[in-house]
Amino acid sequence: MKVGEKHYRSLWWEESQQALQIIDQRFLPYDFRVQSVETMQDFVDAISQMRVRGAPLIGATAAYGMALAMKHDSSDAGISDAWRTLYATRPTAVNLRWALDRCQEKLMQTDVAERATTALNLAHHIADEDVDINRRIGEHGLALIQEIASRKSSDEPVQVLTHCNAGWLATVDWGTATSPMYHAYNAGMALHVWVDETRPRNQGALTAWELGNHGVSHTYVTDNAGGHLMQHGQVDMVLVGTDRTTAGGDVCNKIGTYLKALAAYDNGVPFYVALPSPTIDWTIVDGVREIPIEERNEQETTHIQGADESGAIQSVQVTPAGTKGSNPAFDVTPNRLVTGLITERGVCAASAEGLAEMFPEFANAS
Amino acid sequence: MKVGEKHYRSLWWEESQQALQIIDQRFLPYDFRVQSVETMQDFVDAISQMRVRGAPLIGATAAYGMALAMKHDSSDAGISDAWRTLYATRPTAVNLRWALDRCQEKLMQTDVAERATTALNLAHHIADEDVDINRRIGEHGLALIQEIASRKSSDEPVQVLTHCNAGWLATVDWGTATSPMYHAYNAGMALHVWVDETRPRNQGALTAWELGNHGVSHTYVTDNAGGHLMQHGQVDMVLVGTDRTTAGGDVCNKIGTYLKALAAYDNGVPFYVALPSPTIDWTIVDGVREIPIEERNEQETTHIQGADESGAIQSVQVTPAGTKGSNPAFDVTPNRLVTGLITERGVCAASAEGLAEMFPEFANAS
Repeated sequence: MKVGEKHYRSLWWEESQQALQIIDQRFLPYDFRVQSVETMQDFVDAISQMRVRGAPLIGATAAYGMALAMKHDSSDAGISDAWRTLYATRPTAVNLRWALDRCQEKLMQTDVAERATTALNLAHHIADEDVDINRRIGEHGLALIQEIASRKSSDEPVQVLTHCNAGWLATVDWGTATSPMYHAYNAGMALHVWVDETRPRNQGALTAWELGNHGVSHTYVTDNAGGHLMQHGQVDMVLVGTDRTTAGGDVCNKIGTYLKALAAYDNGVPFYVALPSPTIDWTIVDGVREIPIEERNEQETTHIQGADESGAIQSVQVTPAGTKGSNPAFDVTPNRLVTGLITERGVCAASAEGLAEMFPEFANAS
Repeated sequence: MKVGEKHYRSLWWEESQQALQIIDQRFLPYDFRVQSVETMQDFVDAISQMRVRGAPLIGATAAYGMALAMKHDSSDAGISDAWRTLYATRPTAVNLRWALDRCQEKLMQTDVAERATTALNLAHHIADEDVDINRRIGEHGLALIQEIASRKSSDEPVQVLTHCNAGWLATVDWGTATSPMYHAYNAGMALHVWVDETRPRNQGALTAWELGNHGVSHTYVTDNAGGHLMQHGQVDMVLVGTDRTTAGGDVCNKIGTYLKALAAYDNGVPFYVALPSPTIDWTIVDGVREIPIEERNEQETTHIQGADESGAIQSVQVTPAGTKGSNPAFDVTPNRLVTGLITERGVCAASAEGLAEMFPEFANAS
């Protein structure tokens, strides 16, 4: 999507440097910095320090990490070493594993001498595939937005509420939840997005940053505000991403998503989840019981990062000294609260049946 | 309640200075500062700048403001001038008006020469009455906590989740929602409190500060976490305060309360609201439709105040420059989501019938 009128992907291969370029997202939304990722340690840092974040982007980054590893040691041991090193960076992310397994499988079937080239081509392919998946999610989601618009008067924008950043910064391009928004904007539709702050890491600021750069009208609200907005008819649809969807249609996403789903349900507001099919975990059904929730550092709750008056990034403590915090990073929205899942193949019900009909080859294999 | 082993009220009359003393809450939870309130401008600043906050505390402060006004001009015009000046400081607070009307009515029936003394005595009385009301709320709420404890094994603490600061800092003493917690702690019960951050103004930090000073075990969580905690059986009851309760039992409280009520309902967790009866607005029934919601400065959403490394209070911007924010300050929880209302007279159903039975004299008068 656009940053200052120029089109960017959130990662790209720089032929001249033979190196991956990423946007170091730790400095966003204050500072737009591009980093060249050149060593295995760079890859480990990029993922574990959340310089890149978001399930699809982590997967693509890991594939480029495998490609780098193959340049230095393309033996079978080299493959499994790289797999282990990269997997350890963020073991919760289901399509980190998906990307690594895919690379490993392909490389094990490839002659040792060709593995470096094959791995790099596969990384390019995974990145392009992500862009294509998200473009298709956007087209299917656009149809839903158009349907809502058709029931409103023409001068009223369609009002979408989103949580966290399931944006192009979390994918290679388009984003998942944001892809329908960008498609609607590009199609010239009137659209306004309520952007949840998404404490503790305030990824809503990333969403505000990217929507703002692309030109999409939006307003930043605290995580507390969504229920009130829905009670007063100010939200036409909720549209979020997901880190992991179960085979039963339960949705694991950034902490707080469940609260918005409850409010949407209580107010008859449709609640849609956009997801690329690689984030579906076909091995589990009941998300609340079966998905272990990452408990992150409590300092993310007791401290907040922002820009001070001089523009420097600073962390301030918002609690009394010594206050203990707890920081569950995700929650699970039960399928009964989800109106539909927007996948690259189309929109399906958030249920075992809905998903099995859309993805028979995976549903039957598990 | 206690601050550093010494008992404090949140405001008190200093005989030697003939002046009201308040805790300037703008510096909490970082710094405990007491201020002497001596001029009408001091009173206006104290309320409008939220040096004092919370419905009961605002009411008591306003009563002392009337007492000061009577010292300088005890004429009828003096009464109505003071009423207008003080009312304009925070017109949303229903018992600011309640306290001012009560003072005005009493003073109009009093000889001009005695008004200064009468007004001061009435302010003392309103403050003492608030303490007494909150003590009784605490006793009724304690019974609910004891009932929950009786169903748990003896080494497990009762887990309470609260939102915002309906604490002793928001009243003259005890607090409303916190009063049952302090009573349970003082009775030696095992108790643990989940404290919601309560963006945008982070009043959860005040709750953490006061619970910590009194010795009550607690953990600070983001506003997003409560639903997840309830899904996993980590909350036995939700206990919040309210700024205004309708005659039908709808509850207007700090933005985000409604989301916690939805999660409590969805998980079978009892959701109680503690309230002194002066915060009941007998003139309205449907809170969602009838209560106008204060839209506060958007900068409260785009900026956050905290302590930097040196301990100085700083504001940092958490959004990209130029991002628009929206800041509805309250929301309304419909009575169907409320398990019960804890009043100074006892616990009643959140319904027109429940309230009318508990307060027949008011319900029938309206």
